[in-house]
Amino acid sequence: MSNTNPARGMRDFLPSDVRKRNYVIGIIKKVYESYGFEPLETPSVENLDTLTGKYGEEGNQLMFKILKRGEKLQQELSEGKITNENELSDLALRYDLTVPLARVVANYKNDLPKFFKRYQIQPVWRADRPARGRYREFYQCDVDAIGSGSMIVEAELISAVCEILQKLGFKDFTIRINHRDILGGIMEMAKIPKEKRPQTLVIIDKLDKIGLNGIGKELLASDLEEESVRAITHQIENQMSLSNSETNNYEYNLQILSETSSPAEEFADSESIKSYWSAKKDLRQIVEYTKNTAARNHIKIDESLARGLSYYTGAIFEINVSDLAGSLSGGGRYDGLIGMFGKEQVPAVGFSLGLERILLIMDERKMFPDDLTANSADVMVTVWNEETIGESLKLANELRQQNLRVLVYPEADKLGKQFKYADSLNIPFVCILGENELAENKIAIKNLKTGEQENVERDKLSREHFLS
Amino acid sequence: MSNTNPARGMRDFLPSDVRKRNYVIGIIKKVYESYGFEPLETPSVENLDTLTGKYGEEGNQLMFKILKRGEKLQQELSEGKITNENELSDLALRYDLTVPLARVVANYKNDLPKFFKRYQIQPVWRADRPARGRYREFYQCDVDAIGSGSMIVEAELISAVCEILQKLGFKDFTIRINHRDILGGIMEMAKIPKEKRPQTLVIIDKLDKIGLNGIGKELLASDLEEESVRAITHQIENQMSLSNSETNNYEYNLQILSETSSPAEEFADSESIKSYWSAKKDLRQIVEYTKNTAARNHIKIDESLARGLSYYTGAIFEINVSDLAGSLSGGGRYDGLIGMFGKEQVPAVGFSLGLERILLIMDERKMFPDDLTANSADVMVTVWNEETIGESLKLANELRQQNLRVLVYPEADKLGKQFKYADSLNIPFVCILGENELAENKIAIKNLKTGEQENVERDKLSREHFLS
Repeated sequence: MSNTNPARGMRDFLPSDVRKRNYVIGIIKKVYESYGFEPLETPSVENLDTLTGKYGEEGNQLMFKILKRGEKLQQELSEGKITNENELSDLALRYDLTVPLARVVANYKNDLPKFFKRYQIQPVWRADRPARGRYREFYQCDVDAIGSGSMIVEAELISAVCEILQKLGFKDFTIRINHRDILGGIMEMAKIPKEKRPQTLVIIDKLDKIGLNGIGKELLASDLEEESVRAITHQIENQMSLSNSETNNYEYNLQILSETSSPAEEFADSESIKSYWSAKKDLRQIVEYTKNTAARNHIKIDESLARGLSYYTGAIFEINVSDLAGSLSGGGRYDGLIGMFGKEQVPAVGFSLGLERILLIMDERKMFPDDLTANSADVMVTVWNEETIGESLKLANELRQQNLRVLVYPEADKLGKQFKYADSLNIPFVCILGENELAENKIAIKNLKTGEQENVERDKLSREHFLS
Repeated sequence: MSNTNPARGMRDFLPSDVRKRNYVIGIIKKVYESYGFEPLETPSVENLDTLTGKYGEEGNQLMFKILKRGEKLQQELSEGKITNENELSDLALRYDLTVPLARVVANYKNDLPKFFKRYQIQPVWRADRPARGRYREFYQCDVDAIGSGSMIVEAELISAVCEILQKLGFKDFTIRINHRDILGGIMEMAKIPKEKRPQTLVIIDKLDKIGLNGIGKELLASDLEEESVRAITHQIENQMSLSNSETNNYEYNLQILSETSSPAEEFADSESIKSYWSAKKDLRQIVEYTKNTAARNHIKIDESLARGLSYYTGAIFEINVSDLAGSLSGGGRYDGLIGMFGKEQVPAVGFSLGLERILLIMDERKMFPDDLTANSADVMVTVWNEETIGESLKLANELRQQNLRVLVYPEADKLGKQFKYADSLNIPFVCILGENELAENKIAIKNLKTGEQENVERDKLSREHFLS
């Protein structure tokens, strides 16, 4: 017998899974739309050219590429002409939702508003080694605001994402905020040469995984001066002690960002240090703008937050909860990326919510509403005998007009067997429409939980009879 | 500059497109759920083995296959060891939703209810030549009821699909119904040998495209006896004259199906003829069971309806509207297919709604509600100056609590420019929060359509102020 499992690293979603996913996605959509974000969908498959070179070497390795079609391919193959896999493929599965967004912004420039706010909730594919919570097909929930450099955009995004988490029932999350130019200033003060800063950020970003010691070692190994490494690890250590105290509150965040100690003489003319102070001002604005939003008591300014991706240019964010290693969500400003398919730079800020991780934690914490996964129908209409089938179907339709979800048992089985089936599906009520009921124009309604049964006049039947 | 179009035959859906698609999908889901159908989702990518050999030669050609990954592939290629494309691929994109359903039914047998009713609305991929209304990535909306041979299932499915079309605003559709065993009986009476019947059905299915003459020619060319061809075309001609009259009404359908003329002596022992009469009884039941449903005045029994797919075993359906060549939807009973991955046969009936075609016609006929595509927000909050940004964001949040979709203009531009932007997005109202309004704890609300402006006490602000 053939293998009936889904492909490696991919998942089937049975009805109760789909309901949970749709519940979460529904809340995400509703909140984003209340902020004026609009839905965008792009094809699963992109031209290979569109994706190539956008994700680095790892991305190239993990991309699912699609085989060329047609006789020519077969002929070239059989003649041994093809010796490189790049000649075999012209299309690939979408690797993220950001590159397609950049393509769309370039392609429909004249059809999109100047400040384009879009959300996109679709699967992406990566041929990664599957592990707990890591799949080869998984959903990304991206939200991006294109076209403005104002911190209003950061504030609105942070506030929207926090509102989503609260509406899902999360209370204990922290949104850590930093700015690439703060990191730049810190590295400048630690006298790390400009060309070594990107790799330094990648190492700092591993703090969660390898700890402070690990970072120190890797920084040394990366050929930085001992003095620089000491300065950086000292800075991180400071942040860590702050992180352990109660620092996600409004006044405290403002206080950190208002420190006005002037830089040492030697940095007086440094561009990096000017940007550092300007970044502090940006973050102060974000904190102030979110004062009256869902984000207020969740923000923690964390100057050690690095974020691995190289394309961020401004504020960066990451959302964590205590019982998850890794983040629930992350994002930041990336003013260079969206313009990659066009002629001009386009400012942009984005957030990506980790749907699979949110679902994982909500499952573990039992955060889903009970009625979500309870059953597939509010009531099941039984079938008395072959002759009354039409009447049962008619009754089912009347009940559906009352906005009830109605199952009809599909065969004229014994009534006891039909009850048992409804009960096995956790359906709370069954309707019985026998010859007596038909003659009297009544319906018998049986509550399968209590065993109680009542006869109701057919034309008085309403939704209320089926509320358990 | 690089190509920013989506891949050939694929489409980007901008916000107004997504809203239309979600509107239709929302109605489809709601109706299916009211019938107790449950949502299922399967991965876009399946093992190649799962799909191979299920769709015939054409399907094999049109499948998007995914290139194997890793160094081994590259090495084998560079050594010229791979001479056949089948060695290059281990995965493929889903070609339809039926084979994945069959796989799921076999894989989760013990987790699924005995009568499994599922709907699935997901994209499928076919490397077909793109044309008007034909894409390489398109959605299928499938609904299937697994596990019962009763005509209750057919009746419920037909009724659900008709209810969906009515809720979408279609009034003039016809659902043609036939039965594979009626076609079998007709072919038996026309003395067509059993082995030639499948190809005969494929030819009959072309009626819409090549007309009666074309069918006659193709049947002769397919090596049938002249007498058989005459008998079949005569039968189709009869049906065509019926089709041109008003035949989609309840009594008329029953009358056709109740004809009790007994078959000629020579067929007295024929299994095909016994099945023919039994099929007529099946269809009579379907007509009777749907008497009190949305389907009632849309059904037309049409004994020339063939449906191209070879896997149907019982009743078959097709839904047509006058301004579309081809069908909006089709389906039927296929008792052999679902069991293909398991040990036992599993009875099943299914329908597939053509989402892309429904959208096409609804667009042409302007059937979408106006407010669906009107705008992305109910109101835009303007920004008075840099200092009042926090207040504008606070107001936006208050308005969102009133269930309004609220855009915040992201920069402290001139007010006139902000109004113009809101108007360009068709947003009916803007809120102004200047120094005077802040001092008086009021909001100015401007209706951009009428130009009227009113001042409202901040704490009396409600949803009602923004209904145009």
